[in-house]
Amino acid sequence: MNQEVTNYLLAYENMKIIQRKDMFNFSLDTVLLANFCSINKNVEKIIDFGTNNAAIPLLLSTRTKTNIVGVEIQEEAVDLARKNVALNNLENQITIVNQDIKEYVKNNRRVKLVVCNPPFFKLGEKSHLNDNEYLQIARHEIAITLEEIIASASFILDHGGKFAMVYRPDRLIETINLLQKYDLEPKRLRFVYPKQGREANTFLIEAIKKGKIGLRIEAPLYSHNEDGSYSDEVMKYFGVDKDV
Amino acid sequence: MNQEVTNYLLAYENMKIIQRKDMFNFSLDTVLLANFCSINKNVEKIIDFGTNNAAIPLLLSTRTKTNIVGVEIQEEAVDLARKNVALNNLENQITIVNQDIKEYVKNNRRVKLVVCNPPFFKLGEKSHLNDNEYLQIARHEIAITLEEIIASASFILDHGGKFAMVYRPDRLIETINLLQKYDLEPKRLRFVYPKQGREANTFLIEAIKKGKIGLRIEAPLYSHNEDGSYSDEVMKYFGVDKDV
Repeated sequence: MNQEVTNYLLAYENMKIIQRKDMFNFSLDTVLLANFCSINKNVEKIIDFGTNNAAIPLLLSTRTKTNIVGVEIQEEAVDLARKNVALNNLENQITIVNQDIKEYVKNNRRVKLVVCNPPFFKLGEKSHLNDNEYLQIARHEIAITLEEIIASASFILDHGGKFAMVYRPDRLIETINLLQKYDLEPKRLRFVYPKQGREANTFLIEAIKKGKIGLRIEAPLYSHNEDGSYSDEVMKYFGVDKDV
Repeated sequence: MNQEVTNYLLAYENMKIIQRKDMFNFSLDTVLLANFCSINKNVEKIIDFGTNNAAIPLLLSTRTKTNIVGVEIQEEAVDLARKNVALNNLENQITIVNQDIKEYVKNNRRVKLVVCNPPFFKLGEKSHLNDNEYLQIARHEIAITLEEIIASASFILDHGGKFAMVYRPDRLIETINLLQKYDLEPKRLRFVYPKQGREANTFLIEAIKKGKIGLRIEAPLYSHNEDGSYSDEVMKYFGVDKDV
């Protein structure tokens, strides 16, 4: 356990989240997604595909009392996720399932909300050649592709159920095409810009299973101020992340 | 000529543009599109589909000395467009063709840039029931549909040629789907927001014929300041519009 690094995310009600330096650490994307997705009153259960260390379920628990299931294929990440859930005394609300998403969906139906922060890089993209295995799986489409994620979400969603994800703009059109292919109609789209006057580096999208056509482009979200500090909106979501 | 209203657009080099109150008047969209499209040095001719009173060609003439062709199906608009071209002494640069776009493209090829501010409303949409015939054609998909515009643009564009248009967000996905259907790969996308913190009401998109996949989301464009005045960026494009 030497390589384990304990961080505290000082968000909301002093949520504590353990991360490991050699594994995928939750990022701004995670925080933005947990705050972007719509949580209606009729949502009985929220599923987080590829939950890693359970950052999204933990953040969601500050918005809702509904049950949250984090599905994660990597055993080591599951251990960490369960530790995080216990650390925050949320065992009654959050369940971590150690399973391949594609297997998990076979026995689940009529879900109202699925969220996902999918791997960004296609297999073969060389952006992170030195990644270890943990990072490879979290960042690259090794265990699952974007299409399999979207197909899986659509498969377990009820009519009118929602799927929310965060991704990067150069795969926006592919994402929209795949959502529509699997009967998920994009309804809300929000772009995240690093600063005023810069191109977007991230987008948040929410689609509705068998929803009517009609996309809304929400107000831009700036992650940083001119001086490089977090913007007020991000500060609202995301406390200071410091080692303990 | 009683119903004719003379306006002056005080943009750039004191361009003069006559408009008629009973016809489609060029709007902010027109100005934004004329400034958004990329004009490379290899562009020998620019085609404006549905040029109406030639506002786009006139505005483009301040950015380039290349030939510009405005295609317009409505005779009355063509008269006005030709008057506007003459009024600005641009007969050598701008040609107005009185033809259906679908006919025009049959005898043209290898174009490097097509621009269009298409009709926004589908046939049957009731947004402007009281429109006169001129406005109906400019605003509704009566003379031509979005798909026919995009197909026509693709048909005359050279490989690597560009198509730029302005439209509204609830038809963004349809637009992207149609562009890809006709081998026009979206490369630049910019959203226009009425003010900070509001949803986008317009988008500008540029696609490349047989282009490689890779979309960039450009910095947000705000049309207005908090107090309702035009933003600095819009003021830069668009002078004060006043009756004479």
